[in-house]
Amino acid sequence: MIHASFAGRLVMLGFGSIGQGVLPLILRHIDVPKDRITIVTAEARGHAVAAEYGIRFMVQAATPENYRDLLTPLLRKGDFLLNLSVDVSSVALMQLCRELDVLYLDTVVEPWLGGYTDPSLSPSARSNYAMRESALALRDAARGGPTSVTAHGANPGLVSHFVKQALLDIARDTGAPVASPPPASDRAAWARLAQRLGIKVIHIAERDTQVADRPKRPGEFVNTWSVDGFVGEGCQPAELGWGTHEKALPPDGRRHESGCDAAIYLLRPGASTRVRTWTPLEGPFHGFLITHNESISIADYYTVRNADGTVTYRPTAHYAYHPCDDAVLSVHELAGKNWHMQPEKRLMTDEIIRGMDELGVLLMGHEKGAYWYGSRLTIEQARGLVPHNNATSLQVTVAVLAGVIWAMENPRRGLVESDEIDHARILEICRPYLGEVVGVYSDWTPLQDRAALFPEDLDESDPWQFKNIRVV
Amino acid sequence: MIHASFAGRLVMLGFGSIGQGVLPLILRHIDVPKDRITIVTAEARGHAVAAEYGIRFMVQAATPENYRDLLTPLLRKGDFLLNLSVDVSSVALMQLCRELDVLYLDTVVEPWLGGYTDPSLSPSARSNYAMRESALALRDAARGGPTSVTAHGANPGLVSHFVKQALLDIARDTGAPVASPPPASDRAAWARLAQRLGIKVIHIAERDTQVADRPKRPGEFVNTWSVDGFVGEGCQPAELGWGTHEKALPPDGRRHESGCDAAIYLLRPGASTRVRTWTPLEGPFHGFLITHNESISIADYYTVRNADGTVTYRPTAHYAYHPCDDAVLSVHELAGKNWHMQPEKRLMTDEIIRGMDELGVLLMGHEKGAYWYGSRLTIEQARGLVPHNNATSLQVTVAVLAGVIWAMENPRRGLVESDEIDHARILEICRPYLGEVVGVYSDWTPLQDRAALFPEDLDESDPWQFKNIRVV
Ligand SMILES: NC(=O)c1ccc[n+]([C@@H]2O[C@H](COP(=O)([O-])OP(=O)(O)OC[C@H]3O[C@@H](n4cnc5c(N)ncnc54)[C@H](O)[C@@H]3O)[C@@H](O)[C@H]2O)c1
Ligand SMILES: NC(=O)c1ccc[n+]([C@@H]2O[C@H](COP(=O)([O-])OP(=O)(O)OC[C@H]3O[C@@H](n4cnc5c(N)ncnc54)[C@H](O)[C@@H]3O)[C@@H](O)[C@H]2O)c1
Repeated sequence: MIHASFAGRLVMLGFGSIGQGVLPLILRHIDVPKDRITIVTAEARGHAVAAEYGIRFMVQAATPENYRDLLTPLLRKGDFLLNLSVDVSSVALMQLCRELDVLYLDTVVEPWLGGYTDPSLSPSARSNYAMRESALALRDAARGGPTSVTAHGANPGLVSHFVKQALLDIARDTGAPVASPPPASDRAAWARLAQRLGIKVIHIAERDTQVADRPKRPGEFVNTWSVDGFVGEGCQPAELGWGTHEKALPPDGRRHESGCDAAIYLLRPGASTRVRTWTPLEGPFHGFLITHNESISIADYYTVRNADGTVTYRPTAHYAYHPCDDAVLSVHELAGKNWHMQPEKRLMTDEIIRGMDELGVLLMGHEKGAYWYGSRLTIEQARGLVPHNNATSLQVTVAVLAGVIWAMENPRRGLVESDEIDHARILEICRPYLGEVVGVYSDWTPLQDRAALFPEDLDESDPWQFKNIRVV
Repeated sequence: MIHASFAGRLVMLGFGSIGQGVLPLILRHIDVPKDRITIVTAEARGHAVAAEYGIRFMVQAATPENYRDLLTPLLRKGDFLLNLSVDVSSVALMQLCRELDVLYLDTVVEPWLGGYTDPSLSPSARSNYAMRESALALRDAARGGPTSVTAHGANPGLVSHFVKQALLDIARDTGAPVASPPPASDRAAWARLAQRLGIKVIHIAERDTQVADRPKRPGEFVNTWSVDGFVGEGCQPAELGWGTHEKALPPDGRRHESGCDAAIYLLRPGASTRVRTWTPLEGPFHGFLITHNESISIADYYTVRNADGTVTYRPTAHYAYHPCDDAVLSVHELAGKNWHMQPEKRLMTDEIIRGMDELGVLLMGHEKGAYWYGSRLTIEQARGLVPHNNATSLQVTVAVLAGVIWAMENPRRGLVESDEIDHARILEICRPYLGEVVGVYSDWTPLQDRAALFPEDLDESDPWQFKNIRVV
């Protein structure tokens, strides 16, 4: 089914697991002539896929020096730049697109190469908080200009829409249904809904069980999506949207000195920081507190303020990520080498023999305890639905597709975050590709089964304190 | 080559990975008629192996109620009880053997079923320190009686002999060779040697790289040796011999209230406690601080005291264990379920497709920095050397064999720990089965590459403080 027709040209920057996975979706759901599409990427990887679909393929890495000269000839007013690269500054590209009056979407606010691990930058400056603020700084100038969707993949991206659906479900199931959901632009109304429902904590709770026919080798980093992307964010400080119910800042927690103040960071890499979480199929597990744009954007979006601007409500929000088992091992090895990257990388594709990506949001602290809403997509389903995808990538690529379609349908919105996009429209486009989409209540709390063999420093009076969730 | 002839009867209690692996070694190196050997074990597992060698096989679990009635009819003066079971009290068996005048060897001081995770016991009472003290309490009464070797496998066991060889190597290589090594019974002389060489820390540094042809499944605990054994010790408190160079007790560190005082414990399970260590082939890595008998016995053995009994020297000693990758994942899953055991267990044997066990001791703080001495045994080598073994089990089973032979050669020694046994004799027996045995110096310290991206609380003035080694 064709969702949109596009008369402009589409430039795809980067053609890794996400780029390759989204191309067949774009060709299936957007009416755009193939000769209007150009792929610009840093390496030959993906060339065969581009050739399979008859899409022009240019190998040229974008750099701070060359990106304008590289992209300007390819883009005219009304065209689309779809950024699915690593190591290219999202802010630089967004600025260029505004100047050229070109639509834009990315899945992460990315810095230039090395930006995540530049030791000359402070942890605060290397955070996603800082990345997001640098994107938001373009907002005023972008107003009324071409739509620029920032950070719209699965997470960040799709999960913001899951949160909205989950809030509506909880409202319905606690006897106070929302008759007509406010528009996404009405932040205050959505924030008041979360406050009214008593949401204290929101996890992006993900368990990837995909496994391959061959074991990870020593010296090899294995993942189901970008190895560079995951290592980059894993080495950034752990970050979380910081809720108003939290009684005390963690000892290694720090506030940023400027910006929205919705989030804190910890003085340690997310890839070495574990948290307790829960998904319906996995049950309780330990995930990594990897920093993500949505941890901050969701906490910021669902902030309720007094007239004088003081904050009266905000949920804690963060990622609790159990990547595929081989990635857990890869992170363990990487930490053992003090974050010196393994010599080999492997992005699992055809060698996956089973497993699924169980990706959703876990809303906690309300009347019914905890509610997980999300997608269960198996590798078999993903392969049956769209070529060149695994379960992880398809959850991302369909969200990219939906974001691109939404931008085409809403071309003059300036800079928009996922939370500001109509969740119903996005979920409508994504749903056929998400496998089973379920909402499940649970009585799980992070206090379950604790302190059986050893004393633990717990806050028994409020299960939803970050102190109870963190693994020490 | 036959090392010993044995006229008595041999009872093997327990016939899991170690029992099955040691049987062919015993038959190869000890002259004992097959009809003098009896296997008593809790389950049918291993029956085919016993049948292959024509060894009597009895399925009967030993319990506090039945063990005397079960074993007494099978044992007479001069016989041998080889305990390779889990969940049977070593102390109970040692007492019985003394009464019956029977030789004895085990590879761990084991409590009765549930003793490692009995929440009614304090962490101190569940520690290996307490287990070892309960064994040592038999020492006086055992003097002059039948030899009872306590905790002699690979580690605890073989590694104590590696430490002695490593000390002699370092003495030689720092220009102060030991002309004639003191006997193992001369603890004071060995302790003074370690002190003179300036050994501050001893790790049992192990990296098991064995991998299988099939990935671990969710809900499955996979290991290269006893799953029950590993989970049991992993849930005990982390423990370490506590050196005199240590400036401060860890915040969660506790001393025991009685006994030798050579070790401390942490108020947390070893399986959730990571330490930095190094082996020649793996390089730097994170291992688990799993409690082990040798952490305490080595620290105790190498203690130098003044005439008034005050301690003037002791090294810090502990295990730094990187089990096979699937076991790392199993531990991660187990921790995520708050130490509720997975429903399935798998002890990897025939499905192993490659890898080795790199097992040795890392002596740190001396003139030449760090020195690793140990065994590199691949799965291919292990399979070629002895049937029914993998690389991990063979390092254990050959040490069991050597301990049994030594006990037969020295039948009236009463209770002996590994450190009190002649290391040269044991290494002579083991060497053909250990693959490559190497000693390698390194300039590695736990301060290498630290605090690059985030501040860390380090003691730069002494790399060998536990605080620097621990992963937080
Ligand atoms: N929001 C989400 O849910 C989500 C999920 C997965 C990935 N992502 C992000 O999407 C991006 C792509 O992920 P992936 O898994 O496809 O990554 P990948 O590592 O598989 O591919 C990255 C691509 O970027 C290209 N590239 C690298 N440097 C470049 C440069 N200087 N100029 C142009 N191209 C360059 C590479 O050649 C490659 O084609 C990453 O930034 C990742 O973090 C977001
Ligand atoms: N020191 C070392 O280096 C070292 C290394 C490996 C194992 N070990 C120890 O050796 C022992 C055996 O290890 P494994 O890998 O063979 O274990 P395993 O789990 O493979 O086998 C355990 C055996 O004990 C038997 N058993 C269980 N309960 C029993 C009971 N009540 N009475 C009699 N038998 C019983 C089981 O039936 C099985 O045959 C464990 O205690 C383990 O901790 C020591």
